[in-house]
Formats: sequence, C-alpha cells, structure tokens
Amino acid sequence: MTSHGIRDRVAIIGMGCTRFGELWDRGTADMLVEAANGSARSAGVALDDIDAFWLGTMDSGYSGLTLSTAIKVHGKPVTRVENMCATGSEALRAAVYAVASGAIDMAMAIGVEKLKDSGYAGLVRVDPPDDGTATETTAPAAFSYLAPAYQAAYGLDGETMRQALTHIAVKNHANGARNERAQFRSPVTADAVNSSPLVAGTLGILDCSGVADGAAAAIVVRAEDAYRYTDRPMFVKALSVVAGDGRAMLDDDASYASIPEAAQSAANAYREAGITDPRHEISLAEVHDCFTPTELVLMEDLGFSGRGKGYQDVLDGVFDADGQLPVNVDGGLKSFGHPIGATGLRMAFECWLQFRGEAGPRQLPGPEIGLTHNLGGRPGRCVSFVGIFGKSPSPRL
Amino acid sequence: MTSHGIRDRVAIIGMGCTRFGELWDRGTADMLVEAANGSARSAGVALDDIDAFWLGTMDSGYSGLTLSTAIKVHGKPVTRVENMCATGSEALRAAVYAVASGAIDMAMAIGVEKLKDSGYAGLVRVDPPDDGTATETTAPAAFSYLAPAYQAAYGLDGETMRQALTHIAVKNHANGARNERAQFRSPVTADAVNSSPLVAGTLGILDCSGVADGAAAAIVVRAEDAYRYTDRPMFVKALSVVAGDGRAMLDDDASYASIPEAAQSAANAYREAGITDPRHEISLAEVHDCFTPTELVLMEDLGFSGRGKGYQDVLDGVFDADGQLPVNVDGGLKSFGHPIGATGLRMAFECWLQFRGEAGPRQLPGPEIGLTHNLGGRPGRCVSFVGIFGKSPSPRL
Repeated sequence: MTSHGIRDRVAIIGMGCTRFGELWDRGTADMLVEAANGSARSAGVALDDIDAFWLGTMDSGYSGLTLSTAIKVHGKPVTRVENMCATGSEALRAAVYAVASGAIDMAMAIGVEKLKDSGYAGLVRVDPPDDGTATETTAPAAFSYLAPAYQAAYGLDGETMRQALTHIAVKNHANGARNERAQFRSPVTADAVNSSPLVAGTLGILDCSGVADGAAAAIVVRAEDAYRYTDRPMFVKALSVVAGDGRAMLDDDASYASIPEAAQSAANAYREAGITDPRHEISLAEVHDCFTPTELVLMEDLGFSGRGKGYQDVLDGVFDADGQLPVNVDGGLKSFGHPIGATGLRMAFECWLQFRGEAGPRQLPGPEIGLTHNLGGRPGRCVSFVGIFGKSPSPRL
Repeated sequence: MTSHGIRDRVAIIGMGCTRFGELWDRGTADMLVEAANGSARSAGVALDDIDAFWLGTMDSGYSGLTLSTAIKVHGKPVTRVENMCATGSEALRAAVYAVASGAIDMAMAIGVEKLKDSGYAGLVRVDPPDDGTATETTAPAAFSYLAPAYQAAYGLDGETMRQALTHIAVKNHANGARNERAQFRSPVTADAVNSSPLVAGTLGILDCSGVADGAAAAIVVRAEDAYRYTDRPMFVKALSVVAGDGRAMLDDDASYASIPEAAQSAANAYREAGITDPRHEISLAEVHDCFTPTELVLMEDLGFSGRGKGYQDVLDGVFDADGQLPVNVDGGLKSFGHPIGATGLRMAFECWLQFRGEAGPRQLPGPEIGLTHNLGGRPGRCVSFVGIFGKSPSPRL
C-alpha cells in the first residue's frame, strides 16, 4: 500500500463535455449520450468496454438505471452519487477509488444536470425538513455574506472591494469568450459589472454564475494501463473531500472571510500530491466561482495568496489567463453556468484539454499540474472538493 | 493487483442497526445517530476515528452534510450514494472500494430512510420525466407480474403457486417473530396469507413487505487491520452490481419468471468469491423479498434451485430457518419493511450477527458464508446487487 494515497495510481484516458447553456432542444439523456460518447471516442474505446459507471446528478430525477437506458449499456454496475454542488467531482472520486481498488478495470464518471426546464428554483436548502432548523435561502444571498466579511476582515474600502470582485467577473467572462462550450461567450466590461442590477447584498447579476444545462464525462483506468489507450493520459494526483457540520459558524471568531472546509480540503490534497508551494507549482486552477466573492476568498483558502492578500493579487492580474497562476481559464461557472452534476467534471475537462495542448485560443504554455475546486452547500456549512491532476506521473515514482 | 477483485481485502469491524418500523417519535437524524453510534461501539472506535462516510438514502431529503451535522463529524468526506432500492448496498460498496483503494483507512457505510411521515407514495418510477416513456406504477403491481409468469413458465396449477408464495410469507414472518428489530413480530398462518386482501394481481397484503423507517451502519477497514478492532470481523468476499437497460423486456422470449440482472450479479459475485456450488457453500442468504414472488424467482436466479425447481424447494422447506439454506432468517423485507437506504445494510447486519454467534433465538449452527441480495427498480428494468460475506478469510489466501 502506497503512503501517498491514490497519487499517480489512476489516470484519465478520455473525456467528453457538451456545450453548456440553455439547451431547450435537448433532454438529459441527449446530454448524457453526447458526453459519454465523447469520452469514449477520445479514449478510443467503446461504451461496452467500460466496466462500471458512476453518475453524478443532484436534481434531475435521474438514477443509475436511466443512465444505463440512455447510453444503452446492459449488465454493468451503474451507480448514482450526490454531494450537492460538488456532485460532479464525487462521480469522479467514486470511479477513481473503484479503479484504484482493483475491483474495476475501466470506469466512467459522468455528470449531468438540466436546470432550465426542470423546475429548479436556485434555492440552497442544506437542512432536512425534520431537524427543526430548515431554512431556505437563495444561493446569491448565502454567498453574498462573503463580500462584506472579507472587506471588514482586512479593512478594505468599498471601492477596492468592488474592483476586486469586478476584476474576477471581467476576467472569467473574457476567458469564457474564448471557449466554444461556454454558456456566455461575450466579454463584459467593468462598467457593465459595476452597474449590473443587484441580486443580493452587494452582488449584481454579473457577480453571479448563470443557470445552465450540461454534461461531462471521464474514463479512468489504472495508471499502468493508461498508455495503452492514449499517449497523453491525465494522472490523478490527489482527491480530497471535506464536509463541515456547521459548528464553525457557532464560533465567536467565525468569519465569512474564509471557507474553512476549502482550506482543509486543499491542505489534504497538497499533502497527498506532494505540493508545498501551490502558487508556483500549480499551472492552472479551476475553482468554484459560483459568485465573484467565492473566487476571491478561495484564492486564500487554496493557498494561492496569503491571508488578506488575495484581493491585491486579483487586482494585480496574478490569476488572469496570462498571469502567474491562471484561474478559471475556461471561463469558470461565471461563463459556463453551473449544471450541478456536470460542473466538477467540466473543471477536470479544462485540465485535460490544457495538458493535451487542445485548449485552442486559451492554451497555456506547458501546463503540468491542474487543480479543480468544487463547493457544495453554502459558506458556514459546506462540502469542499479539491482534485489535483498532472500531465505526467510524479518524477519520484 | 489480485485477480480476485476485492475478495478478503476488506473487513467489517462493527455494525449497528435500529429497530425498523413506524418510528413516529424519531426523525431521520435520530436513526442515523443510533445506527452510527451502534456500529462505532461494536467496533470499539469513536466516530472521529472514521476517515470517510458514505450515506445511502433515496428519498429522505438528506445529503452528506445532513449526516455530518446529525452525527457531528467535521472535516471528513461525507458522500451520498443512491441506486433506488439497492441504495443501502451501494453505500457499503462505496466504502469498501475506498478502503480497498488505500485512499481511506476506515470508512462508514450508513443507510437510512424515513417512509412513514415523508410523503412516500410507494410508486416505482424508473423513467425520467423527459424520455417520453414516463410511467408510474405501484411496486406491488410491478412485481405482481412475476407470479403468473412463473406459474405459466413451469406449468404450475394455481393452488401450487399459491402454496409456494404463502410458504414464503409464513416462513419470513415466523423468522421475524424471533427478531427484536423487526417491524412485524407476529407469525402469520397460511390461512391468513391466503385470505389477505388483494393488492395487485394475485398478491394479497401479506405477500407484500411493509412500509417502515430504519437505519443501519457498518464500519470497514482493510482486512489486515481488522483484528486490531475485533476478534470476529466479517470479511467481504464479493460485491457485484448489475444494471439493466430495459432491453431484456423487448425480447420476444422475455419472461417475468426470472430477473436476469439478479442472475448475472450472482454469477459475477460467485466468480469473485470462488463459489461454485452456492446452495451448499452458502450458510445463509438475505434476499430482496419485497413481495413473495420476488423471493421465489430469486431462488432460481441466485442458483439455489434449478430452473423450475424453486417452488418445490420452497415447499420442501429448503429455505426455512432449519432448512439446508436458510433464506431471510432475520425476517426479510416481509418482517422489516423496506426503509430503502437501510435495507442492504440490514441484510449484512444479519450475516454479522450470525457469524458472531449473536443472533439469539435465530442463531444458525456455525455459519461461514452469507449472501445478501438487494434489488432496485422493477422486473424488466432493474439494478441487482449481490454481496458475499465470510466469517473468515478464504483458506487459500
């Protein structure tokens, strides 16, 4: 048994991803078929070659059987996993563990969500109906807390805070404008963000990600088998999931200027991957920019910036497409929307394209290590996923 | 990498199980706490010692975060899995793969469902709203097809068919009457079953399992670590999941006298566990007796009886508590009801008690190998799980 968890033991040999957006003409099954076939085609395998499937979907009404019917696989294990907005990443984690265990030789992780004609209301409900604390709030309201908390924690004036958030929105939409799969493909100006209609707290509509449909899929095998299928596999360096229980928010010192679960999941993942200096070792990061202040606090929680330094790094362009550590170079949730079960896999898909040199106008020069960060729930009580992926196995192994 | 999949590589070191029934005074969280604490107590560990959690629940409105809040674990991975009525077994499978992969040292699988005051309607809907084939039917109706199909396939007269089904109901209720955790603890007579009000087809109310609340949990570690925690661990010999895609029912020769997914999952599991003669090698089987004809056809699909021979074996008492291969010695779904996320783990719990000599009035003499079979969906399009568990590692290893 390795002491490095799953590092370099499993590889992705094929990925597929639909365009994200308002896909009124396409059902959930159509999107599953496109993502599944895309991943199989890129791996050079048939769907029947795959030994097991994990479907990530939160609210689509789909279970495993509906996947098996949609993509016409019979007699294989097909299982659904769910972890709120981190559901897509959990599908990948399940497939990776199954392959690393030796029980399954080739597995597909596939995520999908149809939000545009499904009755999805955008509510974040993290408490069950029977525990006496059931509350519903909109996602923008739940995440809007981050902005004033961050501003107060580090003594920023309102204009500086707004500039940082606006920089994130402008950056991610500029990135998405160069991505044919994005929901929104138009750059936005700082003026447009600053004057966008308020949704919750200080967040305007252009601080928020969209509501979209989409699907993405990955095929994984044990690392030693990967080069049989492709000359450019993507290796899994680390996977970490951390769930809170809400206790953090009962602490007098609790602050919405940080998401502790994100910091802990990043620390776990860095340990597993052997990363000690994330800002310099990571080539690109796809993070959960459901709202602009989420991306801001994540820059610190993921260790890309020191505490209280993230806003300055954002404003300095450190995380721009041509910066030191490009963040959401594919456009992020801001440009893609957030079809829940698909998002975590869409993040991995950008690492996949970048490592293979297939990112077109967004191609980064020689990326070696990618990070994906996927958040479920809301600040104060959430689940955080961090995945680290590499173009090559670690040299020491 | 072993050629035997996960056989003997993972062991269960603790289990907990609530009473099943109409638990009007207890919420989902209460049941989770009881099952989780019960499993930890029996393993001699604290909940904080556990590195990751998989929650199986279908319809309770619970996600991972509600488990972490209920049992107060913070900073650990907590993930929900779902596979219709096989959901509880999938929680165990996820935990076993994670431990076998080396990524997780100690994992909990926990399943729960609250059906009695949750609005659960007992409908089996296996098609999503958008694929044009959405149909809803009650579970009794969907499974009632099995009885006339079996009767016709083997030329039975109606009275013989009824006697076989009634024997199963009488047997399982007699078993459940000796189980303090069962929902129904009264034996029923053949006359009562034969005259019970019709629900669907030829099935009376006493051919059906009840609607209940309940939870069950298991703690798993790598096999080599198991004896650090208990002198009587339970070893995982095989886990198999098979999902259909509905194509079987399009075949002109298709028949509801068999559940092909069950036969295939059993064959897979026997291969992994090295079992060649299930009827003689298996000491007890907990099977998915949602309705009496389901148990009947499963006796053949699981290879306990030859094709067309199951009804005679049932009538001969082969599967009685004192028969050659006791089936549902704990009372089965017939006596426990079917709180969806909990059922698969409840089945494993009976194997656990039997191997440890803790099954009280139901104790079998020296059981060595147990099988659990858990079904999701409905005949014609379903997912079938088979797990095989052993008191000891296989001698050859």
